[in-house]
Formats: sequence, structure tokens, C-alpha cells
Amino acid sequence: MRDIFTAELTALGEDLAAMSRLVETAVASAGTALLTADLALAESVIADDHTIDAMERDLDERCVLLIAQQQPVARDLRVIVSGLRMSASLERMGDLARHVAELARLRYPATALPDELVTTIRSMHEAAVRVSQQVTTVIETRDLELAAAIEEDDDLLDDLHASTFVTTATGRLTAQQAVDITLLARFYERFGDHAVSIARRVVYLVTGDFADDRGEML
Amino acid sequence: MRDIFTAELTALGEDLAAMSRLVETAVASAGTALLTADLALAESVIADDHTIDAMERDLDERCVLLIAQQQPVARDLRVIVSGLRMSASLERMGDLARHVAELARLRYPATALPDELVTTIRSMHEAAVRVSQQVTTVIETRDLELAAAIEEDDDLLDDLHASTFVTTATGRLTAQQAVDITLLARFYERFGDHAVSIARRVVYLVTGDFADDRGEML
Repeated sequence: MRDIFTAELTALGEDLAAMSRLVETAVASAGTALLTADLALAESVIADDHTIDAMERDLDERCVLLIAQQQPVARDLRVIVSGLRMSASLERMGDLARHVAELARLRYPATALPDELVTTIRSMHEAAVRVSQQVTTVIETRDLELAAAIEEDDDLLDDLHASTFVTTATGRLTAQQAVDITLLARFYERFGDHAVSIARRVVYLVTGDFADDRGEML
Repeated sequence: MRDIFTAELTALGEDLAAMSRLVETAVASAGTALLTADLALAESVIADDHTIDAMERDLDERCVLLIAQQQPVARDLRVIVSGLRMSASLERMGDLARHVAELARLRYPATALPDELVTTIRSMHEAAVRVSQQVTTVIETRDLELAAAIEEDDDLLDDLHASTFVTTATGRLTAQQAVDITLLARFYERFGDHAVSIARRVVYLVTGDFADDRGEML
């Protein structure tokens, strides 16, 4: 009985990692589609998002069944409840990657971003791709140092997000450019927040400490 | 034993409703602060958000304890897991109200919105206030008709959100105005999404059916 339960928990972790790998692909492709005005790539991100959504629903069902059938206590229960939270975060990260792809599709064939914004978005894209890879590894290995690295890249995303408010306040941008950079920076900033939330849940599972994550918008 | 458990479930529902009432106050005050450039009101929303965050953490703890101690199955378990999800949605709704207040504070003493945008934001504000009140009532009464009304107001929020893309595309706005309307419309649109998610969970608890909520951004 206990062996089956342990196997189920292991499968849960593997599925979270698989979901995270799909998010990696989604965010990498979405940013590339945006920066290179690649419509087909944008469409593929949008079309593939339902797979991530379906994985979340499947994981949820299984978590609830696992609680119902095995009636876990203490640590096992904590793992399962954390799994529910992490799958919700991964699903949102997939949505945010899809939003980036939707904006790329909306603006196609233009990229519609002036040089100074391309630099910012490219930096956010690179940080988001890094963060998504780290999330997969943290889920797989529970490496606490890597969890800390996610916080650093999230700080970078927050700084870049804040810098876009400065850029839009200069008045050098058109309204359309201002809208695009505002949305994109927000999507990437939220992407980082969800990654941090996952990292903190992994730290919590390992150490029992959960950092408060009250993120500021501005 | 069963009586204690039933009492705990009832308390859970009451606390979700209490949390929802705090969200009502937050979103009503945040929109008023924005539309009337009321700095003190904006500050109060920002300061009070930690109470909503604390309620979420407390509810989470109790849900996990309840599962651990009572080992509920079937319907009871469904109620508790839905409670976890609803508290997460309410916490996000509180964050979004805080974001509106933060923007009001950032632009103070100006409201910084031209007339055509004030009309849109006022409509979004009113729909969000309605939605937040309906969410409280739906949690308290499990009224399925009211749950449907939340979907209607969410559709209105989606339409208003979409209309801001048209407005910003006209080129009549300054970049700053475009940024403000883009952020605000996004906050209100997400607020509606979370309300719908709560409404659907209540419907699910009553009927067993859960509607898919794959919201589109654009």
C-alpha cells in the first residue's frame, strides 16, 4: 500500500516536471515568435496551451483522488497540496506564454517595437526562459541553490518591468508601442512571480519554511 | 466527530465570505480612489491588502489540517479543495484591487484619464463592484442564477477590456494614458476572470459540473 502511494507521489513529481518542460517550450517559442515576427511559431504556442491546461486538470483530479484514497497525513499531504498549487502556477505560466504569442500574432507582420524596447523585451525573454528551465530542474532535483537563482532572475524581471514605466513616461513612444510594452512587461513580470511561487513551495517542502511572497506591482 | 467536522466546513464557508467582503471593500475603494484622485483612500486599500493575504494563509492552513485530521472523502474533500482554490482567487482579486489603488497613488494628484477613458474605467469599476458583491452572495447562498449573472458581468468586463485596444489603437492618447488604460483594463479583466472561477467552483459543488474556463486575452 505504502509502495503504491510512494509511486504515485513520484509520478506526481514527474508530471509536474513534464508540465514545466512544456512551459519552457511555450515561453521560449512565444518570445522568439515575438522578436522575429514568426506567425507559425506564435500559432503553435497558442494551439499547444490546451495541453498544459489539460495536464493541470489531470494532476488536480489525481491529487484529490490520492488524498481521498490514501488519506495521507503530515508530510505526504503537504507534498500533494503543494502539487496542487504548483500545477496552478505552471498553468498560469503557460497562459502568460500564450498571451505573449497572442500579442505577436496580433501585431504580425510587424514586431512593432522600437530598438530600446526590443532590448528590454529580449532581456525579459531571456530571463523568463532561464527561469522556466530552472523551475523544471528545481522540481526534479529540489536544489535549494537553484531556487535562490530563480529569485534573482525574478528580481531582474521586476527591475526590467519597472524600467518600462520610465520608458513609457518619456513620451518617446507611440500609444501602440506603450500598450505593447506595458502588456509584455506585465506578462513577463507575472511569469517570474509564478516561478518564484513554485521555487518557494519546493523550498518549503525541503525545509519547512515558506517565504512570504507579497509582490509589488510598481 | 462528524458534528465538529460539519462545524469546521461551515466556518470555512463563513471565512471565505468574510474574505470576499474585504475584497468588495477593496475594489470599491480602489476604483473610487482612482476616479476621484483620493490618495488617502488609495493608501488604505494598499495597507489593508495584507489582511486578505493573511486570511488566505490561515484558510490554507486550516484546509490542510482539516484534511489531515478528518480524512474526508468524496463530497467533503471536494468542498475543502474548492475552498483552497477559492481563497487563492479571492487573494488575487485583493491584489488586483491593490494594483488599481497603486496606480491611483502613482498618478496622484492627477487622475490622468481623458473623458472617453473615464467612461470605460467607470463602467469596469461598476461591473467589478457588482461582481465582487455577487461573489460574496454566491459563496453564502450557492445561488446558481447569481453565478450565471457573474458570467454576464465578466463578459461585460471582457468587452470593455477589448474596447480599450480599439481606443489605444486610434492614436488619440498619449503614451502615458495608453499605459494607464492598458494596465487598468487588464486588472479589471483579470478580476472578472477570478470571480468567474469562484462562481464555477460553487456551481461545481452544487451540480458536479465544472465549466472549462480558458480565458482569452485579446
